[in-house]
Amino acid sequence: MVKKVVRASLVSSASIALLAGCTVTEPNNNIDKTVATNAPKNIIMVVADGMGPAYTTAYRNFVDDKNTPEIEKVVFDDILVGNASTHPAHVSGYVTDSAAAATALASGTKSYNGAIGVDVEMEPVNSVMHYAKGLGMRTGLAVTSQIVHATPASYIAHNESRKNYNDIANDFYDIKVNGEPVADVMLGGGTTYFKREDRDILAQFINDGYHYADSYENLADVPKGSNVIGLFAPVALPAVLDDVRKDRLAYLTKQAVRHLENDNGFFLLVEASQVDWAGHANDIGSAMAEMHDLAQTIEYLRGYVEDNPDTLVVLTADHSTGGLTIGAGGDYRWSPEHLHKMSASARTIAKGMVDNEMSAEYAAEKLGLSLTSDELAMLDSVSDQDEETRYSAIKSFLDVKTNTGWTTSGHTGVDVEVFAFGAGYTSFIGQIDNTDIAKKIFGLLEEKSVSKPVL
Amino acid sequence: MVKKVVRASLVSSASIALLAGCTVTEPNNNIDKTVATNAPKNIIMVVADGMGPAYTTAYRNFVDDKNTPEIEKVVFDDILVGNASTHPAHVSGYVTDSAAAATALASGTKSYNGAIGVDVEMEPVNSVMHYAKGLGMRTGLAVTSQIVHATPASYIAHNESRKNYNDIANDFYDIKVNGEPVADVMLGGGTTYFKREDRDILAQFINDGYHYADSYENLADVPKGSNVIGLFAPVALPAVLDDVRKDRLAYLTKQAVRHLENDNGFFLLVEASQVDWAGHANDIGSAMAEMHDLAQTIEYLRGYVEDNPDTLVVLTADHSTGGLTIGAGGDYRWSPEHLHKMSASARTIAKGMVDNEMSAEYAAEKLGLSLTSDELAMLDSVSDQDEETRYSAIKSFLDVKTNTGWTTSGHTGVDVEVFAFGAGYTSFIGQIDNTDIAKKIFGLLEEKSVSKPVL
Ligand SMILES: [Zn+2]
Ligand SMILES: [Zn+2]
Repeated sequence: MVKKVVRASLVSSASIALLAGCTVTEPNNNIDKTVATNAPKNIIMVVADGMGPAYTTAYRNFVDDKNTPEIEKVVFDDILVGNASTHPAHVSGYVTDSAAAATALASGTKSYNGAIGVDVEMEPVNSVMHYAKGLGMRTGLAVTSQIVHATPASYIAHNESRKNYNDIANDFYDIKVNGEPVADVMLGGGTTYFKREDRDILAQFINDGYHYADSYENLADVPKGSNVIGLFAPVALPAVLDDVRKDRLAYLTKQAVRHLENDNGFFLLVEASQVDWAGHANDIGSAMAEMHDLAQTIEYLRGYVEDNPDTLVVLTADHSTGGLTIGAGGDYRWSPEHLHKMSASARTIAKGMVDNEMSAEYAAEKLGLSLTSDELAMLDSVSDQDEETRYSAIKSFLDVKTNTGWTTSGHTGVDVEVFAFGAGYTSFIGQIDNTDIAKKIFGLLEEKSVSKPVL
Repeated sequence: MVKKVVRASLVSSASIALLAGCTVTEPNNNIDKTVATNAPKNIIMVVADGMGPAYTTAYRNFVDDKNTPEIEKVVFDDILVGNASTHPAHVSGYVTDSAAAATALASGTKSYNGAIGVDVEMEPVNSVMHYAKGLGMRTGLAVTSQIVHATPASYIAHNESRKNYNDIANDFYDIKVNGEPVADVMLGGGTTYFKREDRDILAQFINDGYHYADSYENLADVPKGSNVIGLFAPVALPAVLDDVRKDRLAYLTKQAVRHLENDNGFFLLVEASQVDWAGHANDIGSAMAEMHDLAQTIEYLRGYVEDNPDTLVVLTADHSTGGLTIGAGGDYRWSPEHLHKMSASARTIAKGMVDNEMSAEYAAEKLGLSLTSDELAMLDSVSDQDEETRYSAIKSFLDVKTNTGWTTSGHTGVDVEVFAFGAGYTSFIGQIDNTDIAKKIFGLLEEKSVSKPVL
């Protein structure tokens, strides 16, 4: 339904040319004109999907050095500026999904759960990435999900449902701003959606001069400043505990920046997509590992902004997932040290148990724990059950070891933290709504377009 | 053990007289000297015991007017400045109790769970209230627990265990700064601890010129500017859902301010003590009602600071309680509207069911809900069980109606929000630790003592 409307709307919204040679898409009046005037040249928006407040505190405890009296600060502690509410449009109640939240973060518009870049009337709404592209900035995304997943999709596509992955992939090529696809650089997973029997979108990108990378190694070889589509898995990237790169998001972010840097500035969306998936699975091991991948990314960006103080970085979550709590069951204890030596995800350990004669010992070795005979017996008792049962057993085992609590396989409604640093970061201080983040970015982009005409 | 040490320490720490006629207790080097220089005349520290981030978001949803498209802002939304970590000293792990957290908030010192105004060596540590009293300011507290409970106790007493209520009550009279008890105004519950067979501390306060109030009405009659001990219940005040005053904390706070205002300024501790108790009980009805009592208090204080811009108000929690989550069980729904018409607490309804022939109908009427026959049958089925079973049934019923999640009868380790407004509030922006709150208040008090000598 939505698709036809989208193109028409983009044509009409692209009709305001503020500057010669540059078509600007309208941000639907969602411009916050009160933003600070030190407009950044580059904006990097980082979304940690599912990272509610308990995740950042848990991460600080997870990396704490128990041999020192203090709990060491983590990279998030220097950059917190406030909280954001996340609720979707009233029609969907108080708990958002990733699509409505991403649409809010991308476009400043509240919508229904499931909406990708459309409002409650299913009318398309333009994102800050559309706007940045229209201003002549370079644009990109680096994520650990398939690149057509809800968060990145909402910055580019318009669809009534997040589930329509193929249509969303089509939009990645078909929606044009200034005659070009919305994103110049796209890094993540999803070959399945771009190289299909009915359509080879990948070939279309390549024909238009995009470099294609199908491995981290290939990506490193693409010449600086290129347009790139890098798809490193059929659907999502592996869980970071199972990936060859333990800093995969930091790596993809660095690579994206290398291609985006230019005199007109860039807008980059980064997503730590799989914090959320660990939360849905109630998998505390992967939750902390995905947080560590994110932390490494933010550490890289801290250095980048030190060298490039005209860059703004904003980090937030779209919602919290799983109802994670630090401590559970009346016990004032949380013991994340049991997660320090995992060398595979709980899912992969569960899979692997079936191939091992000594499946409990195999699991213990992959968990990096020396287990009691009772604990080994418990793992042994599930070794001939199905994979889901083994997976659940390992996760429950880690919950007991660490004393972690969960209340849901879905999302929860708690406000999420907002972190910001670099040029214009003060605009994000205090309690805001997720839509305010887009509105402030629109405002900063507009400010920039007025103060520094594109070349 | 600790008691003897305390007196000695206070005598020695009271030996630095900065200003003639005024003895200043040392804040154990816990002074943050980087605080902003607009030192406030009055400081009001508000602790919402147990109010983790989910509580403030839940409260916003709870009071939302569903007839408007927006979710209305609540009083907390205008004053958020950041988060605070809450972990106790390493010896107690990552999840704090109210005693260690209150000692941190009061004195800037990390201690073990259970510690009241003592460090990990069980040495006494002085609080910002001691320091303020030493500077010649008036001092007070207004809480909804017994006034010897962990949070207020840590601002006045020194004890190795929060459980020693009688010893703590003794400290309220025996610990002297400038020859006077630490607090000039004490409002809350706890006659049990102050009028005992072995000692009538209440009489001692009255002999020293303190007014005594045993009811809200009596309190209103005490002449402005008095020293007052107001104890309105043998132990804690009733749950706000059961209290005659639905704004009991706002009322006590107003009364305290009336007695504390003076040319030298004042320090007031306010505690919404029973948010925590609702969390421990996993009682969402009382959790939202206690939050509403707190919100009314903050609304009063917003007005007060508007009229008295030389006053600083800081609000935080000591920790989160219960592992509360907005949404649970995989369902993206939270329905707080079912809590709007409760006219008694779940505990009181559970008690009352036994006296009623139609106990399920009685419960429904008190809950303010029209129930289905299945729901009534469920309540009926527990009506001849014991009180705890009835109480659990009512709470579980409300959890299902609202789709609320909990993970523990204890505390959790998530960072808590920090709110601040008025003179010097900018010192509290960003990510801090609970000890930083005391350090900053010490810093502001020291700044004030230097810039504005007491009269
Ligand atoms: Zn999710
Ligand atoms: Zn508690």
